[in-house]
Amino acid sequence: MEIDQDPAYQQMINGELYLESNLLAKLRDDIRTKLMTYNLITDNDERNEKIQHLLKKVGNRFFVEPTFYFSYGENITIGDHFYANHDVTLCDEGQITIGNNVKFGPKVGLYTPKHPMDPSVRRTEAERTAPITIGNDVWVGGSASILPGVTLGNNVIVGAGSVVTHSFPDNVIVVGNPARILRENKPSK
Amino acid sequence: MEIDQDPAYQQMINGELYLESNLLAKLRDDIRTKLMTYNLITDNDERNEKIQHLLKKVGNRFFVEPTFYFSYGENITIGDHFYANHDVTLCDEGQITIGNNVKFGPKVGLYTPKHPMDPSVRRTEAERTAPITIGNDVWVGGSASILPGVTLGNNVIVGAGSVVTHSFPDNVIVVGNPARILRENKPSK
Amino acid sequence: MEIDQDPAYQQMINGELYLESNLLAKLRDDIRTKLMTYNLITDNDERNEKIQHLLKKVGNRFFVEPTFYFSYGENITIGDHFYANHDVTLCDEGQITIGNNVKFGPKVGLYTPKHPMDPSVRRTEAERTAPITIGNDVWVGGSASILPGVTLGNNVIVGAGSVVTHSFPDNVIVVGNPARILRENKPSK
Repeated sequence: MEIDQDPAYQQMINGELYLESNLLAKLRDDIRTKLMTYNLITDNDERNEKIQHLLKKVGNRFFVEPTFYFSYGENITIGDHFYANHDVTLCDEGQITIGNNVKFGPKVGLYTPKHPMDPSVRRTEAERTAPITIGNDVWVGGSASILPGVTLGNNVIVGAGSVVTHSFPDNVIVVGNPARILRENKPSK
Repeated sequence: MEIDQDPAYQQMINGELYLESNLLAKLRDDIRTKLMTYNLITDNDERNEKIQHLLKKVGNRFFVEPTFYFSYGENITIGDHFYANHDVTLCDEGQITIGNNVKFGPKVGLYTPKHPMDPSVRRTEAERTAPITIGNDVWVGGSASILPGVTLGNNVIVGAGSVVTHSFPDNVIVVGNPARILRENKPSK
Repeated sequence: MEIDQDPAYQQMINGELYLESNLLAKLRDDIRTKLMTYNLITDNDERNEKIQHLLKKVGNRFFVEPTFYFSYGENITIGDHFYANHDVTLCDEGQITIGNNVKFGPKVGLYTPKHPMDPSVRRTEAERTAPITIGNDVWVGGSASILPGVTLGNNVIVGAGSVVTHSFPDNVIVVGNPARILRENKPSK
């Protein structure tokens, strides 16, 4: 069975309460093993080539510093000219969509899973997700976290160490915990 | 000599000013070497089995994503059904006690050491610790930090990126830097 | 050509808009490869000896827990008796100068690059830097971030999880996002 025909997978990416199926568990194990191996490859071209082939769709010019982690890869779409510094983690239980010319500083985390509020449900490992969408020309500073359901417009700059709990439109600089607009930042043309 | 008969170890876990003894240094080196090796094991069962045997006591169903670091292991007690995502670090110079059904997101840090305020003392590497205690059904969001002396009750949810500087009772959601109560979250039953 | 005769290198450390030259790219690749290898060495003396030889200048008693990352090493000067816990990252595109008796907790990040505000310039990968200078007897708590252009005086304590966006004088404890002075902390003598 293809992963996108798995009912658990469909629930997962649709934001419904889901439990990891055997198929999902197997994919995740496979990705973890490959990432652990690929992250040790010192040749940049080989490392990046192998890692990007684990993602759903990636444009031209993909470069990630080691160590780069994600959960499935299947739910990550990245445009052209992407750069991620060391120790970036993308939890792609939900869909993660990233535009063109996006840069991530070190230790950035994108987190799509939302564990249930009720502990008796959380204990079962059932969870929901909400997608994260990042526009073009976005720069996320080091050690920043992006939370489930966040959409960032084009040309958003996220200050280092910020915690982004809700969405922001184009052309703003956001900082803090929770992140708030520091100022507008219109492009020169 | 057993580690728990070492005076420096006793000072360390009792929150007194201590200097690392030869015995502590040797244990720490041994743990570091083993963790560096174990964190590279791609087989999940083997990796988790070996890592959990370095801890003082762990219940059933222990799963940590690589890379998982701690200082001694000797001071970490974890209940049943524990999950830690990538790059979690537990500085267990002081005692770390974690209940059942606890989940840590990626890049979570639990920090028990407290370096002295006076630089002339700090320079000697003498330090104190304060324990961290985490109840049952606690979910700590990605990139959150828990500081020395913090106790979290049962069913506490710590928002991603939060910095938890003091203790919180059962059934609350805490967020921010420093973390504050966002709202109560009573279980349904 | 020596790296310090490279015009791009001079622009980089002088805070001018620069594009990575072939020489810089080659140095960075070389450092990345070496760090990936050295970070896996389990012998403490050998690991620390090899890593410190990649830095511009380091005093006595240098100890870093794995994994320790930086960009070039060429721009990092560290005094005597330095300790960095796990997963510290120093982005030394700009100069990083660290005094004596400095301790970094786990997951600390020092970030000197400043990407251009205008997306059409940022897209070219041109960037600027601003130096980071850390005095003597500074303790930076776990998961804290230090931003471009920051100078910290002697005996500054940075609370865990803080985001340090501007400079602070001697003898203060700073916490929060953005970091603010919590209180003075004069040494006893």
